[in-house]
Amino acid sequence: MNAPHVAVADLKKHVGHEVTVKGWLYNRRAKGKIAFLILRDGTAHVQAVAVKSEMGEASFALCARLPQESSLIATGLVRADERSPGGVELALRSLDVVGEAQADYPIQIQDVVPDVGFLMKNRHLWLRSKKQAALLRVRSEVIRAIRDFFDSRGFVLVDSPILTPAACEGTSTLFGVQYFDEQAYLTQSGQLYAEAAAMALGKVYCFGPTFRAEKSKTRKHLTEFWMVEPEVAFLELDGLMELMEEFVTHLVRQVLERRAEDLKVLERDLAPLERVQPPFPRLHYEEALERIRKEGVEIPWGEDFGAPHEEALMKGFDRPALVHRFPAAVKAFYMQPDPKDPRYALACDLLAPEGYGELIGGSQRIHDLAFLEKRLEEHKLPREAFEWYLDLRRYGTVPHSGFGLGVERTVAWITGCDHIRECVPFPRMLYKIYP
Amino acid sequence: MNAPHVAVADLKKHVGHEVTVKGWLYNRRAKGKIAFLILRDGTAHVQAVAVKSEMGEASFALCARLPQESSLIATGLVRADERSPGGVELALRSLDVVGEAQADYPIQIQDVVPDVGFLMKNRHLWLRSKKQAALLRVRSEVIRAIRDFFDSRGFVLVDSPILTPAACEGTSTLFGVQYFDEQAYLTQSGQLYAEAAAMALGKVYCFGPTFRAEKSKTRKHLTEFWMVEPEVAFLELDGLMELMEEFVTHLVRQVLERRAEDLKVLERDLAPLERVQPPFPRLHYEEALERIRKEGVEIPWGEDFGAPHEEALMKGFDRPALVHRFPAAVKAFYMQPDPKDPRYALACDLLAPEGYGELIGGSQRIHDLAFLEKRLEEHKLPREAFEWYLDLRRYGTVPHSGFGLGVERTVAWITGCDHIRECVPFPRMLYKIYP
Repeated sequence: MNAPHVAVADLKKHVGHEVTVKGWLYNRRAKGKIAFLILRDGTAHVQAVAVKSEMGEASFALCARLPQESSLIATGLVRADERSPGGVELALRSLDVVGEAQADYPIQIQDVVPDVGFLMKNRHLWLRSKKQAALLRVRSEVIRAIRDFFDSRGFVLVDSPILTPAACEGTSTLFGVQYFDEQAYLTQSGQLYAEAAAMALGKVYCFGPTFRAEKSKTRKHLTEFWMVEPEVAFLELDGLMELMEEFVTHLVRQVLERRAEDLKVLERDLAPLERVQPPFPRLHYEEALERIRKEGVEIPWGEDFGAPHEEALMKGFDRPALVHRFPAAVKAFYMQPDPKDPRYALACDLLAPEGYGELIGGSQRIHDLAFLEKRLEEHKLPREAFEWYLDLRRYGTVPHSGFGLGVERTVAWITGCDHIRECVPFPRMLYKIYP
Repeated sequence: MNAPHVAVADLKKHVGHEVTVKGWLYNRRAKGKIAFLILRDGTAHVQAVAVKSEMGEASFALCARLPQESSLIATGLVRADERSPGGVELALRSLDVVGEAQADYPIQIQDVVPDVGFLMKNRHLWLRSKKQAALLRVRSEVIRAIRDFFDSRGFVLVDSPILTPAACEGTSTLFGVQYFDEQAYLTQSGQLYAEAAAMALGKVYCFGPTFRAEKSKTRKHLTEFWMVEPEVAFLELDGLMELMEEFVTHLVRQVLERRAEDLKVLERDLAPLERVQPPFPRLHYEEALERIRKEGVEIPWGEDFGAPHEEALMKGFDRPALVHRFPAAVKAFYMQPDPKDPRYALACDLLAPEGYGELIGGSQRIHDLAFLEKRLEEHKLPREAFEWYLDLRRYGTVPHSGFGLGVERTVAWITGCDHIRECVPFPRMLYKIYP
């Protein structure tokens, strides 16, 4: 009789039955005539108990000496066990080795002080560790939640191109690509394309990798990261802020509901996540400035916020906050000025609490043709490259708004991860492109 | 009293009520004292009827002269009308112009013979046409169906990097990127990374843009296209073929269920799609060869199939077919040979009917370290760049398999579209990168 192949995460549904698990040896303890093997199969971990008298000499010897990360097919009885993390253990009946690992597996579970440089070079193996696998599962869930949110609200996914002829916001941080006879660049944002698509389809989002050739080495920067950018025709700033609020609330709730086990592995304090409920505090730039200064952090009027300012501001809040109406002069060329006071742009950032800072930047876009032309000139942008973008104002222009949310920063915040490099499968950073 | 804002696609739920539609003028006919306006809002089209005696002189004059693509807010009563495509029409009460379009909108609905070069230059506007918008909505649904399929089966999304240090299958068709001090390339496939992730998480998929700098100008080639690549530990060729079959069946079914309106706009014959049900015919390379030759198409033993061969082969089938066990010599270095006859690789392609050809290429991967090392040598691949990939065989190697499906080719087939360039929002082709 063949025992059915069951995923470790599903073992609790099979208590009292014999099953087969296909996976890898994660860790082992042997005590005389009993060996405890921790098996992982990518869905979860389970303890398998090998008893010498039941398995026979040869099989038991194997259990006692098999190197970490060997691949195996284990068959045994599923027993309820309240002390185990998954609530079950496996009483081993047989063990087949699929691929015995070399004994020099470079990442030892016992290593107390991690050498991050070394782990990054072995990222392809590091992914197998409990914490890294949990981070990747949460990342996958965050992306699923992003798509669920927009798909269920009638947004159409319209992917913007990665290879672009012109820069959206200056060329200093662009990666260049030789595109046959032309110079092209890797996209920094799909927004301009999303605007064109919103005029065709009403509510759209683009979602793909974006690139910044920044020479900064911080725990919040990657050169390649994923960004989702919704864009909505006939939407103005107030509606945009509501959309951000609903969206972020949805992401957090879906991860809390579906990835509770992973958050436990990551030792995430859930209380701050459970507080993520609308309404989020909304602050005009001036009010935000005042609060930052009250915290003793200097900032002249008219400047955009950096990490220290965001941190000072967020000290006062236990959930994400929306800061709106930044000074137009420090914001992008395409942002609509506030009709009540054109020194301000109808822009809004969403800041996460707990020191994670900006997750979202968004704005209402300029819909007036002549005004947009003037802005292109002021910003010394090449008119020709933007002709198609100007067409959107020539033919049926409407007020419209959108934002961009960085996936890896969001994962870092939701998981409580210190460094963004662990929130993407194969991080790309300054001078770092292997494996 | 403000009439509620309703999406055109939802108007049929509001028959007998006054509503507001926000959108664009798509087309118009005026007959004396009545004008018929076709409005679009990105979700669908609706006919609005303006009667001079009810709207007043000024408003009616506006209806009669407003240029195509002007943006507007229309309020009126929803009336059931069986002759209309959406089953309703709008009896206009008032019309506010948001942005009057310039009168020279370049894409005229009346144009019978399309100038595709011109339309491609105006892709940002062309997206607004009925057929193009329908194609984009189907593309969005195909991508949603891809994710639904894998997410609901316990696959973890693990994005592979776009910037890569080494080539997966030769460098002649790679786009180079200057990555700070290093030479990097745009990815052609995330497979090798997906293999690493499968050893960590069991069942994974990566899904992102991929790039081929091919100098070919065919209706099936893009330089930038989206590809989904599942990879599964402990899966062998037979299981892989089942996965392909279930997957493609699911994609077609979901589009049939949810995007019937769009398929109608595209005049897609639904019968061939409704026939997409398992089991798909499965052919050994030798059998496929025989069938191709029977159709009078020459092909020497040992060659991979090109478009004419695929076409000849698929003449005999009314649904997708699986061709397996191609000659190892023409396939990629990482493919597992057939243990029964190592001249063949455990590879499988899925071919679409109706002339659409290859949608999927996949294989079981080599899991033996020494054998993989030998293959790298035979293919003259730089050993150092593949050290991490070899690690996957050093530490807990298992049989594993995966495949890649091209999104745009799938959309072309499902929609019956002649050319792949219309199946992506902003196509990138040889020498073509604007807008």
